[in-house]
Amino acid sequence: MKIVKPSTIAGVMELLPKEQLVFDNIKEIIEDTYKKYQFMPIDTPVIEKNEILFAKGGGETEKQIYEIASDSKDMSLRFDLTVPLARYVSEHFQDLNFPFKRYHIGKVYRGERNQKGRYREFYQCDIDIIGHNSLSIYNDALLPRVIYEIFTKLDFPEITFKINNRKLLNGFFRSLGIEDSTDVLRTIDKKDKIGIENTFEELSKLTDEKTAKTIVDFIENSDSNSELLYKLFDFSDDELFLEGVDELNKVYRYMIDLGIPDDNIKIDLAITRGLDYYTSTVYETFINGYEKIGSVCSGGRYENLASNFSKQKLPGVGMSIGLTRLFYQLQELGLIDEKIKSLTDILIIPMDESINEYAIEILNKLRDNGESVDIYLESGKFKKKMNYADKCGIRRVIILGEEEMSKREYSIKDMETGEQISKKFGEL
Amino acid sequence: MKIVKPSTIAGVMELLPKEQLVFDNIKEIIEDTYKKYQFMPIDTPVIEKNEILFAKGGGETEKQIYEIASDSKDMSLRFDLTVPLARYVSEHFQDLNFPFKRYHIGKVYRGERNQKGRYREFYQCDIDIIGHNSLSIYNDALLPRVIYEIFTKLDFPEITFKINNRKLLNGFFRSLGIEDSTDVLRTIDKKDKIGIENTFEELSKLTDEKTAKTIVDFIENSDSNSELLYKLFDFSDDELFLEGVDELNKVYRYMIDLGIPDDNIKIDLAITRGLDYYTSTVYETFINGYEKIGSVCSGGRYENLASNFSKQKLPGVGMSIGLTRLFYQLQELGLIDEKIKSLTDILIIPMDESINEYAIEILNKLRDNGESVDIYLESGKFKKKMNYADKCGIRRVIILGEEEMSKREYSIKDMETGEQISKKFGEL
Repeated sequence: MKIVKPSTIAGVMELLPKEQLVFDNIKEIIEDTYKKYQFMPIDTPVIEKNEILFAKGGGETEKQIYEIASDSKDMSLRFDLTVPLARYVSEHFQDLNFPFKRYHIGKVYRGERNQKGRYREFYQCDIDIIGHNSLSIYNDALLPRVIYEIFTKLDFPEITFKINNRKLLNGFFRSLGIEDSTDVLRTIDKKDKIGIENTFEELSKLTDEKTAKTIVDFIENSDSNSELLYKLFDFSDDELFLEGVDELNKVYRYMIDLGIPDDNIKIDLAITRGLDYYTSTVYETFINGYEKIGSVCSGGRYENLASNFSKQKLPGVGMSIGLTRLFYQLQELGLIDEKIKSLTDILIIPMDESINEYAIEILNKLRDNGESVDIYLESGKFKKKMNYADKCGIRRVIILGEEEMSKREYSIKDMETGEQISKKFGEL
Repeated sequence: MKIVKPSTIAGVMELLPKEQLVFDNIKEIIEDTYKKYQFMPIDTPVIEKNEILFAKGGGETEKQIYEIASDSKDMSLRFDLTVPLARYVSEHFQDLNFPFKRYHIGKVYRGERNQKGRYREFYQCDIDIIGHNSLSIYNDALLPRVIYEIFTKLDFPEITFKINNRKLLNGFFRSLGIEDSTDVLRTIDKKDKIGIENTFEELSKLTDEKTAKTIVDFIENSDSNSELLYKLFDFSDDELFLEGVDELNKVYRYMIDLGIPDDNIKIDLAITRGLDYYTSTVYETFINGYEKIGSVCSGGRYENLASNFSKQKLPGVGMSIGLTRLFYQLQELGLIDEKIKSLTDILIIPMDESINEYAIEILNKLRDNGESVDIYLESGKFKKKMNYADKCGIRRVIILGEEEMSKREYSIKDMETGEQISKKFGEL
């Protein structure tokens, strides 16, 4: 028979089982926490109609869509979970209760060029809260609260939320006489990459030196959150600006009320996020000491989720963890390896087939007691059996022979320390 | 703006959030139980190379494959989890420990004609145990043990495993002078659909009346499992037949040893399964009283998993739950609706904005105490707020006004009974 060389397509993450266990554990913590805060699950088809995926039109992402080959050429793989959410909320509008809090953990697809750390298939873990006509600003604080709890449970280094408000920025630029702030925002967005001096130079070209200086002074500051908010209220009397300051202040206060420590929050006026999508609160999240890997969870508030699919006004706020990329980065930093451990604590090894039934009796008992226990019943030499336990990283083994069976006892051997504890069957 | 009518592609399951909660709960029970028995997770890309998916060639399923449109036309969506498993085990052979116990829960894709209860995207929940060169027959009993525990936890009606052995069947047919048993097996496989009399008639055409009678007598019997096995050992001295009986006997004994009640097992000589794939043990699983929906979990043992991708001999045994189809059927039977309940037990409703901070204080406390509690901070009339609680099916509400805040107390109202319990904040 001709043998086909086994390999995946390029640009996907495929893990070994022991790494997959860690990945799944992270995913489970994310999901359980989303649910603890009453976000409801949705699960939409990976394949959507083209008319849905291309409804908005014109984005960079759409060039990367994987189309399904068929006569009608009318289906493709989703490239994010936001378009499916907009479609879902519009389609099921009558059956949903608003504010609608949903989470969605699923794979999305992009025909990226093959590049280290860029994936063609990757997990997104999204939470969004969708209102009908209006949505309380409290929700903008709830999302980081949920994310904060997730990263605390994940037991990685501490995180910092950088938050800002787009109304505040747009109001500020308007007060400087800048009507179309697109290019200015784009420049500020690059600040952490290009440095403050280059930012100043680029801004000088877009405006003038004096305005550039004002902007740079505005986005660079070392005030505490409270000090900064205090100053902002007095900074300008532009209406939009003040609305933004008021919102930012409320989000910050609610974040504190919900138990996020002030140390983990940084109001950062240089955070801009997705230039055409967000309209109010914006966030990025950084792992302290690992800021270079970029934001691990971003998002913000948008005015209307589903203008392509519905006449309803559906304002919302969302955050998203790009789990595949995050896992890749944590793995590169060596933060994953230390979390790998065996799924099995104890392995039972009967010496020959006549012991099997007794061995299974012990297996059942230990399993009923909540132990993570497995049995090795394959044929082969003793060395092969011990080798299996060793390669699987199983710490304790129970070896059973005629003697143990006749006395109805067994002993647990610790593979690391060599320590051995004998037990009567009754003591299980 | 032009509005696109929001809809999914045809032939997919998309649930409302409250149904999705039940679906996910079932999925979680399956996953947790797989893991409890030390099956390791794998997660492979939904897109595979065509050379992998088409390696075996010639099957019905392959006509239904969704190809990705691209210049190179070399990728498609997987149609099951078995081909990806074969590819995975071959590719990562050096890094795996055998027997390799893996589970895989994921979506698969088939271009089915649009038909009720047939899906183009559906979940499979597979467990397989793969040996290297050999694999103990014990593993054939472990799989139904895991499945038994899952259905017990799911709290649906009891299930019955129907088990059989292909060596036994082939040995039996050989002893009757039938060398190519393909058509006979196919006829027997239809027995439950067409009835025993039609089966007899079809078999008579394939062989002769006497042989048909012998086959029908063989596959139809009302013996207990032990009686049947006892008779089988004496039934024929065909070597393959006796090997099959010995294996079936061992699987049955191990199933009993592992705690599956005899009542939930039926050795059924009419079970044949996948004509060209399985080579020894075969199983089907039926929900008692709902046999008409067909087998809800099937599988069997195969001689070599990955002959297309590897020179290694990799015998295995597997079972699979088709979760999407199962959920659809349970829903049709009305067994899902009764499991729907709200994710939120208590909803806190502050009467106006000045109470918000006090309300969040109570929220934090109750959440820390492990309560499933949410807060409603949207603007609107009191009736709208209560309506939200009602529509979400939330049983208990805490309504907070000035008075409650000043006394630092609150009362929990039961929406069903109308009962109201007042508490001091300290009593939380």
